Amino acid sequence: MRAVDLIRIKRDGGQLDRPSIEWFVDAVTRGSIPDYQASALLMAIVIRGMTPEETAVLTDAMVRSGIRVEYAGLSGVAVDKHSTGGVGDKTSIVLAPLAAACGAPVPMMSGRGLGHTGGTLDKLESIPRFRTALSLQELRDAVARIGCALIGQTSEIAPADRTLYALRDVTGTVESIPLISASIMSKKIAEGIGGLVLDVKSGDGAFMKTQDDARRLAESLVSIGEANGVRTEALLTSMDAPLGRQVGNANEIIECVETLKGHGPEDVESLSVELASRMLVVSGVERDPAAAATRIRRALTSGAGLEKLKEIVANQGGDPRAIDDTARMPSTPDRDVVRAPRSGVVAALKAEAIGRAAVVLGAGRDRLDAVIDPGVGLTIAAPVGTDVKAGDEVVIVHHRGGRGLEEARSLIEQALTIADQRASRRPLILERIVGKKG
Amino acid sequence: MRAVDLIRIKRDGGQLDRPSIEWFVDAVTRGSIPDYQASALLMAIVIRGMTPEETAVLTDAMVRSGIRVEYAGLSGVAVDKHSTGGVGDKTSIVLAPLAAACGAPVPMMSGRGLGHTGGTLDKLESIPRFRTALSLQELRDAVARIGCALIGQTSEIAPADRTLYALRDVTGTVESIPLISASIMSKKIAEGIGGLVLDVKSGDGAFMKTQDDARRLAESLVSIGEANGVRTEALLTSMDAPLGRQVGNANEIIECVETLKGHGPEDVESLSVELASRMLVVSGVERDPAAAATRIRRALTSGAGLEKLKEIVANQGGDPRAIDDTARMPSTPDRDVVRAPRSGVVAALKAEAIGRAAVVLGAGRDRLDAVIDPGVGLTIAAPVGTDVKAGDEVVIVHHRGGRGLEEARSLIEQALTIADQRASRRPLILERIVGKKG
Repeated sequence: MRAVDLIRIKRDGGQLDRPSIEWFVDAVTRGSIPDYQASALLMAIVIRGMTPEETAVLTDAMVRSGIRVEYAGLSGVAVDKHSTGGVGDKTSIVLAPLAAACGAPVPMMSGRGLGHTGGTLDKLESIPRFRTALSLQELRDAVARIGCALIGQTSEIAPADRTLYALRDVTGTVESIPLISASIMSKKIAEGIGGLVLDVKSGDGAFMKTQDDARRLAESLVSIGEANGVRTEALLTSMDAPLGRQVGNANEIIECVETLKGHGPEDVESLSVELASRMLVVSGVERDPAAAATRIRRALTSGAGLEKLKEIVANQGGDPRAIDDTARMPSTPDRDVVRAPRSGVVAALKAEAIGRAAVVLGAGRDRLDAVIDPGVGLTIAAPVGTDVKAGDEVVIVHHRGGRGLEEARSLIEQALTIADQRASRRPLILERIVGKKG
Repeated sequence: MRAVDLIRIKRDGGQLDRPSIEWFVDAVTRGSIPDYQASALLMAIVIRGMTPEETAVLTDAMVRSGIRVEYAGLSGVAVDKHSTGGVGDKTSIVLAPLAAACGAPVPMMSGRGLGHTGGTLDKLESIPRFRTALSLQELRDAVARIGCALIGQTSEIAPADRTLYALRDVTGTVESIPLISASIMSKKIAEGIGGLVLDVKSGDGAFMKTQDDARRLAESLVSIGEANGVRTEALLTSMDAPLGRQVGNANEIIECVETLKGHGPEDVESLSVELASRMLVVSGVERDPAAAATRIRRALTSGAGLEKLKEIVANQGGDPRAIDDTARMPSTPDRDVVRAPRSGVVAALKAEAIGRAAVVLGAGRDRLDAVIDPGVGLTIAAPVGTDVKAGDEVVIVHHRGGRGLEEARSLIEQALTIADQRASRRPLILERIVGKKG
């Protein structure tokens, strides 16, 4: 097998057969194909596409580049949730304890923030001493004992994806539904789950700008999951403005705690409950979606979800007192305010610019090796739909010594639109995509 | 300027502006762009194409990655010929001395064989002690003193092309009319010529399989030449069977000498005369094509071309006695014969398989570092159109100790078709493509 022959086939719009794709993934894993050949093939794939069959084979080969985790002695089917990323999207930290509290085993592997979107791992690490880098043995133990662990991807999980993703990031070959699908699903399948709920976002702050693109991605993801024996469904959700009131790290954890106490923002609560309910269904804990939703709501109101979060925090070395007393979470004393320039209604608070504002303050990273400041971030005082008078607080900026403040203010001002009248908005949950077995 | 932004523009079918293309070529020349980004951009260019404007800018930037040679004190405009490569194509070694003998300054830079096609440099180096690696100063001196030098590309000429070509070769990004055009024309423009005649071949043994593709390439090349002040015209020629009777290195030089003595094969003579005549026209030595052809024919029959070849050989350190007495050229005592399997007429002798047969004998190279055996090769005893009886000699194989003999015989047998009746054949010269100023 010669790399250049595979490249030529895809360049000319042809289809790669199973041995070719397996050879490529193996060569990537072993480092035996030069980066310049891998990137040429990736570009040909981005432009020419891949059939569902090619995408399934690619995913399978990427899964088999590492190990597929197995869990012993679980009461049910392990289940995870994956979001395609957004601004203020903290639902994982709400729904994982809720689903676990209802009996679903949740071995959740999350990522870090990059670009304007936040990352669950960064948020979790704002909890004092919380460890996200568990070994697979620690993961298995945690799931068996307390039903949930919230960790980062380990090196045994789809190592080919790590190599390919790093190369895609610097060669303009990220934007491809087959490549994105294989990347997401190979990691999820390798986790050893039997059920998966996807939150595929579209809109200003999402990777997919249009609902049509999001639907195509969701269909691709669901079909790969089903083909690999993972019961998978996807919610298409809107990401035009940030989710919730807090954007950052420690402040988002505090918002999660508030939500688990029953007084979080409506959007965070409703999306978390919906996704967690679906997790109960795909894991087989509940057959009926309405019963699943009732059960999740009960875990919320009873405080069982909050207790589970504290268990998870304690189990992963974190300080559970920071959950009981959120004054123990990192913060910054420095704050500034962006005010309404005129009276009216907040018509838009564009998610991407808000996300970028958080990044420039130090809450996210533009480069993989940037260091996060867990205490900085934004609080949205007047979310979209709020009536404001000129001079009212719209966004409170939690900065550290003025770092990035000027740029953040400018980004927030760009993000903000005040109008005379309330505009129509897309609903938060747009569509549900299920597999043929769904 | 960020490489990934350029890559994305081209990936999405956009047009790269002058600063972007200049930045890319500069980064390639200085080695400051990683190969994996360059190859991703090249693949996007291969699939998405480039406009004539982008191709012109790319060529110009590649010219300016090195120096553009200047000649002092020439009597006319320096002129060169370039062929897109074929099997048995030895016309350079006939037409350069003819054009120089008629007063055109010919600073000819040629390439080596790769794959199934031969290379002028390899053929010339079969002349004992002939040096093709002249410095630019030696080139200028030779052109001023004897009107011609036949040399390889120097490191000062379009260095960006060398880097890009090496990368294209291993990343499936060779097949692109804009990239091929920029590669060819940047080297020719940097040579400092004012006139250029192109031999763009199509057919089984050519890089372009169809006449339509060859025409597109020729039009692209001619338009770049004209845009850069080089009077350029192209002949589209057929490359279905080898040109002439000899395929190899030393034996091709002997065939050139025979042609310059007036008893070469008709196809080699007619194509060489036609191309040389056009060189006289584009260099301004003769305005009228018919007068140019008459003058070239006179240089052939008078022996002036042969004398000029001897001058060139002597000037470049070669042994001119090998031209007078071709028994002094390298050869091999071992020969084998492929005979007609039945009676009929030779209907096809496919150029690519014949070229490959010569390579496996040692006359060419499959890898850049392979060593050429100048004495081995093929003699076509019965070219296409010859009536043969079963058992007649069709191809004589000059091998060295049986090396590659079996595979070469098999390739020749695959190349050969004997039919009952003479088939219609494409003419050797198919079309002429001239610029708007032609």
